Amino acid sequence: MQKNYKMILGYDGSRYSGWEHKTGRDTIQGKLVQVLGHLTDEPVHIIGAGRTDAGVHAKGMVANVVLDTELSDMELKDYVNHYLPEDIVVYEMTEVPERFHARYNAIGKTYQYRIYDGRQKPLFDRKYVWTTEKKTDVERMREGATYLQGTHDFAAFCKNPQKKKSTVRTVDRIEIERDNDYVTLTFHGDGFLYHMVRIMTGTLVQVGLGRMEPSQIAKALATGERTLAGVTAPSQGLTLVQIDYPAR
Amino acid sequence: MQKNYKMILGYDGSRYSGWEHKTGRDTIQGKLVQVLGHLTDEPVHIIGAGRTDAGVHAKGMVANVVLDTELSDMELKDYVNHYLPEDIVVYEMTEVPERFHARYNAIGKTYQYRIYDGRQKPLFDRKYVWTTEKKTDVERMREGATYLQGTHDFAAFCKNPQKKKSTVRTVDRIEIERDNDYVTLTFHGDGFLYHMVRIMTGTLVQVGLGRMEPSQIAKALATGERTLAGVTAPSQGLTLVQIDYPAR
Repeated sequence: MQKNYKMILGYDGSRYSGWEHKTGRDTIQGKLVQVLGHLTDEPVHIIGAGRTDAGVHAKGMVANVVLDTELSDMELKDYVNHYLPEDIVVYEMTEVPERFHARYNAIGKTYQYRIYDGRQKPLFDRKYVWTTEKKTDVERMREGATYLQGTHDFAAFCKNPQKKKSTVRTVDRIEIERDNDYVTLTFHGDGFLYHMVRIMTGTLVQVGLGRMEPSQIAKALATGERTLAGVTAPSQGLTLVQIDYPAR
Repeated sequence: MQKNYKMILGYDGSRYSGWEHKTGRDTIQGKLVQVLGHLTDEPVHIIGAGRTDAGVHAKGMVANVVLDTELSDMELKDYVNHYLPEDIVVYEMTEVPERFHARYNAIGKTYQYRIYDGRQKPLFDRKYVWTTEKKTDVERMREGATYLQGTHDFAAFCKNPQKKKSTVRTVDRIEIERDNDYVTLTFHGDGFLYHMVRIMTGTLVQVGLGRMEPSQIAKALATGERTLAGVTAPSQGLTLVQIDYPAR
């Protein structure tokens, strides 16, 4: 009997060409299709809550997949973890109602971006941070973040906006915390455009380095001019942390 | 003019065949010789405080090297860090008296070993821990550690002991701490034999898993029988943390 499974996943995105399956490339979705494909003769369709770019990590990606299997939830999870490579982990795999759709039902997402601005080169976490040349001023970054919070047209904070699709999004929370030489930016919103978290981060870092005025963010939002926003922060500092769904 | 430099180093040992230079192999010492070799026409001799095995990491390795250079300490450190691969970092590089010898002058060493015994696969730190199949009992491990502490003949805790060389060492401190699914073992002593920290760890883990009685450690020490001690813990969980030298 066909059953619908919700999966919560973590992955180290360093060596992957992102979430979405591409022929001839290593992708997270591709690895999952490969492993789950051993359980069934039918084609396996995995629906992710969203797509993460090449090099982006995850601690709480959500996906769903319809499978016809006799295995219990626990056996299924153990099976998948056993055959997945060591840089992809399935934390939860549970049967859910047929109507559950990881993308359509998602109502919120949390991303974290980690910056390292210490004097020494980072070592053991060098693949999970963006190292800036100078110290960043967290107070200035927080000031810049106040402009980004709320409901705006984020066209200036998006790569290749599509004319027919809305670029309005709501970012209801941006937290910026320093822990010694590490600065973590946490973004929560109803959804994010292509490269949006990385462009918001790159912009806030330029503000934090004193290379851009916080108020320029308001101008970028108002005009939709990509060139008024900052650089795109590299993918390796970014982690998808959580996807929210309505309480049942 | 020839000057003697003391270096404090960190490295991710994952892709190296250990500290010591071997032709045709990637080693930490080899990489340092290569980079420092650009500064001089003389052969470069780097003296490490000790050797770390293939796959072992370091946060506080110490080495010294005699160089004839006009660069300031700071310039020298920046130069070396710029040309070293991203998995080796020089934290300090300072001129020291000619008589300083990283190996002969070392009077103590601290190693840390990290175990992970959670139910999920480890992800972002998977290269820096040893994952055990079951939960380890920290209290039992601490009981086992009391037998190892002190001055003993550690012949049973050494790979290939050499007949002519003493296998007596003093381990004055073993601390075992749990932090959620992680157990960290910290060893401090005057010096350690080949594989000694890894065999002590493997033995304590077997005690912690209930597969060996703590008192068997006393028997292993008394008889010098390697087979009475436990397995050799894998290198990837081990980090050389600090080398002590006499206060001037």
